[in-house]
Amino acid sequence: MPLTRDDCTALDAADALAPLREQFELPDRVVYLDGNSLGALPRATAARVQRALRDEWGRGLIRSWNDAHWIDLPQRVGDKIARLVGAAPGELVVADSTSVNLYKVLSAALDLQRQRSPARRVVLSERSNFPTDLYIAQSLARDKGCELRLVEFDQLAGALDEQVAVLMLTHVNYRTGQLHDMAALTRHAHERGALTVWDLAHSAGAVPVDLNAAGADFAVGCGYKYLNGGPGAPAFVWVHRQHVPHFQQPLSGWMGHASPFQFSPEYRAADGIARYLCGTPPVLSMVALECGVDTLLAAEPLGGMAALRAKSLALTRLFRELVDQRCAGHGLHWVSPHNDALRGSQACLTRDGGSDGGAYAIVQALIERGVIGDYRAGESGSPDILRFGFTPLYLCHVDVWDAVEQLHAVLDGDIWRDARFSRRAAVT
Amino acid sequence: MPLTRDDCTALDAADALAPLREQFELPDRVVYLDGNSLGALPRATAARVQRALRDEWGRGLIRSWNDAHWIDLPQRVGDKIARLVGAAPGELVVADSTSVNLYKVLSAALDLQRQRSPARRVVLSERSNFPTDLYIAQSLARDKGCELRLVEFDQLAGALDEQVAVLMLTHVNYRTGQLHDMAALTRHAHERGALTVWDLAHSAGAVPVDLNAAGADFAVGCGYKYLNGGPGAPAFVWVHRQHVPHFQQPLSGWMGHASPFQFSPEYRAADGIARYLCGTPPVLSMVALECGVDTLLAAEPLGGMAALRAKSLALTRLFRELVDQRCAGHGLHWVSPHNDALRGSQACLTRDGGSDGGAYAIVQALIERGVIGDYRAGESGSPDILRFGFTPLYLCHVDVWDAVEQLHAVLDGDIWRDARFSRRAAVT
Repeated sequence: MPLTRDDCTALDAADALAPLREQFELPDRVVYLDGNSLGALPRATAARVQRALRDEWGRGLIRSWNDAHWIDLPQRVGDKIARLVGAAPGELVVADSTSVNLYKVLSAALDLQRQRSPARRVVLSERSNFPTDLYIAQSLARDKGCELRLVEFDQLAGALDEQVAVLMLTHVNYRTGQLHDMAALTRHAHERGALTVWDLAHSAGAVPVDLNAAGADFAVGCGYKYLNGGPGAPAFVWVHRQHVPHFQQPLSGWMGHASPFQFSPEYRAADGIARYLCGTPPVLSMVALECGVDTLLAAEPLGGMAALRAKSLALTRLFRELVDQRCAGHGLHWVSPHNDALRGSQACLTRDGGSDGGAYAIVQALIERGVIGDYRAGESGSPDILRFGFTPLYLCHVDVWDAVEQLHAVLDGDIWRDARFSRRAAVT
Repeated sequence: MPLTRDDCTALDAADALAPLREQFELPDRVVYLDGNSLGALPRATAARVQRALRDEWGRGLIRSWNDAHWIDLPQRVGDKIARLVGAAPGELVVADSTSVNLYKVLSAALDLQRQRSPARRVVLSERSNFPTDLYIAQSLARDKGCELRLVEFDQLAGALDEQVAVLMLTHVNYRTGQLHDMAALTRHAHERGALTVWDLAHSAGAVPVDLNAAGADFAVGCGYKYLNGGPGAPAFVWVHRQHVPHFQQPLSGWMGHASPFQFSPEYRAADGIARYLCGTPPVLSMVALECGVDTLLAAEPLGGMAALRAKSLALTRLFRELVDQRCAGHGLHWVSPHNDALRGSQACLTRDGGSDGGAYAIVQALIERGVIGDYRAGESGSPDILRFGFTPLYLCHVDVWDAVEQLHAVLDGDIWRDARFSRRAAVT
């Protein structure tokens, strides 16, 4: 018997995580399926940022670096994120952007391998990794006389040969939602003599991550997706404690100095992960990020990331079931994996016809109807993608139902063919 | 005849720039002399950030990258800063931190010289340059097989020999307030075959700067000092238009790509200064910075940076005159230059007794009395410094009078010797 909207309402009534949605300011009549690109606004954020502005900055002025503990923000917010990704307190800091942090850790990883195994000169990654990761790796490979080697998802394990210095992967693929097995790949990489660098942009706050249990070497991640830190929120960086004391990253700014306020002309790296800091921390963005991370920590008494993962999988499974039920015959094909163990917190589709298949226009038509997903252009022969992120913190089963009903309406009524949905610039 | 407070009141009454102070939220009974470390809060900022939070992020969600023009912020705010530093529209972008931007431009400058004059392997700078600049240069020198050579202020011109690839200077020294002649040093550097990299941290918004007229090659600057962008505000980067097309900076993140939303796996640098962008722009911090920059642009109808400079010099001259008048016999000595042409927008003093001279405690006692300046520790034999920044946008002549009266009281009454003013961590 096909599912009904009432079934979804019943699932929501039984969902212990449902009250977590009240932490967010979501617009009326919107189903927000793009938290994988920009997380929603937590209710606490506006007041917290106002306090930072009016009280801490406006009244406290320079004194707030100490009195309001601004100087501790990279570590304090870092310790909170650490709880979501299997890191210990003091192992992770918030700083800069994901791209900049990747530059730091990939540089450190390559320098480490240059000492250990100078013959290893290859950075191995996935061809469909997020482009900024590939761009940063291209730059470092050029400057360090290395090579960036790109293969497909299922060729990675086989490509770990004696030339590979570093396996650099995004844990959950931004286009397909495909999830790597971090522990298995890390073990395999280590057995083959490679180090691992993990980008957690689409996994921190979305799927359980245990960096220390996996034995990962380096990791970076994004603050503005599932961590709900706001547009362009600072990113984070983690380095396995065995590596931290031995390697200095190239962006050796004063906040990574052992004693920044001695104003010594000689750089001396801080003892711990603080050496991965560079410039002055962006306070307003950091306090906003802290509010975002707090919305995830609020799930800890309810089962934490494991419970959020279970709900995320339930939502993406439901979406699949409903799309198959309601939108059959419209040329849609699944890109995101069916197997739960291989799927992050998003569901992705293509439509027959390649770049003429209307993926862009379908997403625009859905947005006009209050269902906000996004579109990712295909390139090098890969298809255009309709991408829907399912954030278990603030989505419910009825949202999934309503989204699929709109998708059905847009396809069945050929609404997406209207000229107003034609292509223009899109942003992650 | 000695000056009186009434004289200062009369000067304020005649000051055409005085109404600009109304743009700021300054606490009552505070004289804020630390705008060179963290600028004051503009009145417009809190409401603007709230709008970005509640309307643009909260309601607009991902759509605001286009609808609220978030994606244009690096260029839009950059074009505004350009007006303050003698750059043309499209030549300057806001991004990352000063340290990270310095890494980009110093790397580009060294790569440029490696092509032009491979024998030049020295980065020449001032020994008392701000440490983060030296730290970044040490890192790049190590990785590129170069040498960082440090000399004193007055040895710079003579040290420009055939080995120097890049002259890297902070335009106004953070400790002493000493101001370099950018045009003369740049001309001299070019005659000797060196390129110039200027850090405008203590000059953008404080002293007139004309990057194009000076023929400078590269510049970076800070958003949270005289630009009033808020704690840890993003920084900016400028590159002379003749260099931009020829060199790629190492932090090649996706926002510096010619077509970031094509998601191409191959990096292709954007045509103009946008290639100096890296990760996703921090929107909340950028809109706050825009409000701060607007407070300076509001001076344009009143004479702009030239008028602000005239007032800044009047305030630092007045401070000197009043300190000499009221605090004689207390062992104070001027560190900032007497000559207007050599002084930025700050006044600095030492006190007899070196690190026992009480500079730290005097600053703390002043802060308790509402006069917020700061303290910079001496190192390598240089003395501890009392540092007072004079921001012409929001300070008046009576503020200077009141500050000096408090300094007199703290010294004359030995108030600073109280144990509660003893040293603890201080932050720029």
